[in-house]
Formats: sequence, structure tokens, C-alpha cells
Amino acid sequence: MIVKQQTINLGRFKRGYHLVTDRIESVFTGLKEINQGIAQVFIHHTSASLTLNENADPTVRRDLELFFNELVPDGDKRYLHDDEGPDDMPAHVKSSILGASLTIPVKNGRFLLGTWQGIYLCEHRDQGEDRKITVTVLGSK
Amino acid sequence: MIVKQQTINLGRFKRGYHLVTDRIESVFTGLKEINQGIAQVFIHHTSASLTLNENADPTVRRDLELFFNELVPDGDKRYLHDDEGPDDMPAHVKSSILGASLTIPVKNGRFLLGTWQGIYLCEHRDQGEDRKITVTVLGSK
Amino acid sequence: MIVKQQTINLGRFKRGYHLVTDRIESVFTGLKEINQGIAQVFIHHTSASLTLNENADPTVRRDLELFFNELVPDGDKRYLHDDEGPDDMPAHVKSSILGASLTIPVKNGRFLLGTWQGIYLCEHRDQGEDRKITVTVLGSK
Repeated sequence: MIVKQQTINLGRFKRGYHLVTDRIESVFTGLKEINQGIAQVFIHHTSASLTLNENADPTVRRDLELFFNELVPDGDKRYLHDDEGPDDMPAHVKSSILGASLTIPVKNGRFLLGTWQGIYLCEHRDQGEDRKITVTVLGSK
Repeated sequence: MIVKQQTINLGRFKRGYHLVTDRIESVFTGLKEINQGIAQVFIHHTSASLTLNENADPTVRRDLELFFNELVPDGDKRYLHDDEGPDDMPAHVKSSILGASLTIPVKNGRFLLGTWQGIYLCEHRDQGEDRKITVTVLGSK
Repeated sequence: MIVKQQTINLGRFKRGYHLVTDRIESVFTGLKEINQGIAQVFIHHTSASLTLNENADPTVRRDLELFFNELVPDGDKRYLHDDEGPDDMPAHVKSSILGASLTIPVKNGRFLLGTWQGIYLCEHRDQGEDRKITVTVLGSK
């Protein structure tokens, strides 16, 4: 049994939902060493999220963002927490709905995803900072 | 420390929320070998989800589906992604809200769930395909 | 590779969102033994949740609860499951949206959280019972 862990700075993203599967698989060298196990992908922020969704048609990412922007509209006057602007508290809400971490089975040195599954980084801020993730895998060689 | 992993085809489900705890526990033989650890249950699809909720009263499953069908209505004309019909994009949205994976503590060869907790498979499509999950456990003998 | 697991009774909480990071870190002695790995924090209930969000400004917790109370209002007459009162089914809905478990990377005997991330226990019931969690860590010494 081995464990591999790596913190990766993915840089800045514009507001929206971005497919990052290939990037994580290529940067995280520990993944290739695991034959069977699980991976955990974790984002160290409270105004961006990780989720799994369709990796093919980009309109899914556009429609998903549309849905969440309407569910949690910017500039809601009832929020007390608005120091960083109208997208401040809505970003926190979306971050709890979508979540900060994913766990994915690992097989033969790869994420064992379904054919249509990809990892999305969801940037909920208009001016998000650099987004840092930590990937940890546990399993057998 | 050991790791056990098994991919299971659960077959087709009708649209709705279905209790699958017993089925997974009986089919996944690796679970019994773990004394202390964690299990990860992962669904390889972007239009079905896994969630934990009440295992006793079936009206919880009915009401939960009612809530999500109203939160994310079929046939919303603003969605661009609708090739597979009015339930296509809504299924993707629900899949990101509820999530594709669960992690559950394991003790003495069983899921260490609360008294009222059960695993739901949530089928968001009217005509869903076979649903495949992978269960992975990591822990001590 | 080692695994440590501990079930903790956190007692009763009033309805709302509560920061519990420090409490878990201090009570769960196994965490200090892990150099590199993952932690899983799991709540054994279907009417309370765990989520990660901002650990600094308490208005985030207030606003988050405001959002979810409005998204899933108490006393919705269409719910069949209401034996325990107007907050019964809404608590189940929120529990599935926010989730019952968190996974967090571990490094040097601590949760490897972002600067602003904290663990929230979300009590969705007016009269919640004692809330029990199980924390499991897996990793290298």
C-alpha cells in the first residue's frame, strides 16, 4: 500500500466551469504508481468547487453555470456577508452545494471514470485568485 | 492494509430514488475483509447520482424526488444541451448537486452507517441505461 | 500505512451552521499520527450535514442557513413525510444537498485545509438529537 500526495497550483480561471481532468492526470505523477485504490481531489478554497459532469459537449458546462447563477443570484440584498462584492456570498453558497472534494476510484494508474465523466473546476468569482488543489492517492502498487 | 475494488452493474432503474444498501453489501465481497477503514461507492454516470438518506419510510424517497424535479424542471427552454430530450440537462444538474460518489466508514466488515441511513441510487433519466458502480475499500484486516 | 478511526458524540446543536474544525482536531487523536494521507469525516444522521466553508466571518454561516431555509422551506404541504413536523422532510432534503461526509487531505498530523476553510456541522432540525460523527484517517506515518 502506498500514498502519494501533491499540491498543484492550477492558476487563475475566469468565472465559469472548466474541464481539468487531463491537466490533473498529466501533472500528478503519483497516479501512475497506483494499480488499485482511490484518489481524492481537494480544492483549498471556499469560492470555487470541484464536480464531475459531462466531458464532451461544452454546452453542459455553460448550462450548469446558468442554472447555479440563477439558483444563487449575485447581489442578493439579504446577505450580510458582501465585503468582496455581489458575487461574494453566492460563491460561498455554490461552493457548499457543489463541494470542495471529489473521490474517484483508481485502476491501472488512471482515474476510473465513466466514459462521459470529467472533472470540472467551478470558478464562482468574477475575479478569482489562483486556485490550488491537492491530489492524494491511496492504494496498491 | 488492504484494498479491494469491484465494479458492479446494477442494471436499469426507473426514474426515481432507490434504496440499494443491501444489494451493494451482499454483492461486494471485499467489504467483509475490512475490519476498519473507508469505503468509496462511485457511479460512472453523469445523469444518475448516489446519496445517503432515510432508509425506512419510502415517502422520503418520493418527496426528495419531488423536490429535485421542481428545483430543476424538465424542458427548460434556456438550456442549449437538450439532444437527449427534456430530461437531459436537468439530469446533469441533479447529478452535480447530489454527487457521483459516497465515502462511508467501514467497521467489522460492514458499512458503519447511522441507524436511519441508506444508500440511494438516484435515476434522473426517464429512460436510463444500465447503471454501473465501483466500490473500493481501504483499511486494515 | 496505518488507519485510525474514532466515533465522537458532538452533543446537541441548535438549528444552524456551526464551526467544528478545532473540536474535531483536538478530540481525534489519530490525526496526529498521519504524516500524509486522507481523512474522512462522516455524520451518522439524515437531518444534519457536514460541509466546508469560510472559517472567519460568522455572517457566512448565517447567510448560508438563510439560503437553504428559503430553498427548502419548512412546512411544504406537498411533502408526504412530515411525522416529525414541518422541519422533517426539509432536513432530509438539505442533508442530501450538503452531504453526510467530507474527505480532507492530511499532512503532518493536521487537516490540510485552505486558509479560509473550516468544517461546518449543519443542524437542520429545530430539536436535533445528539450528533455523532466518525472520523477515519488512512495514510503513512
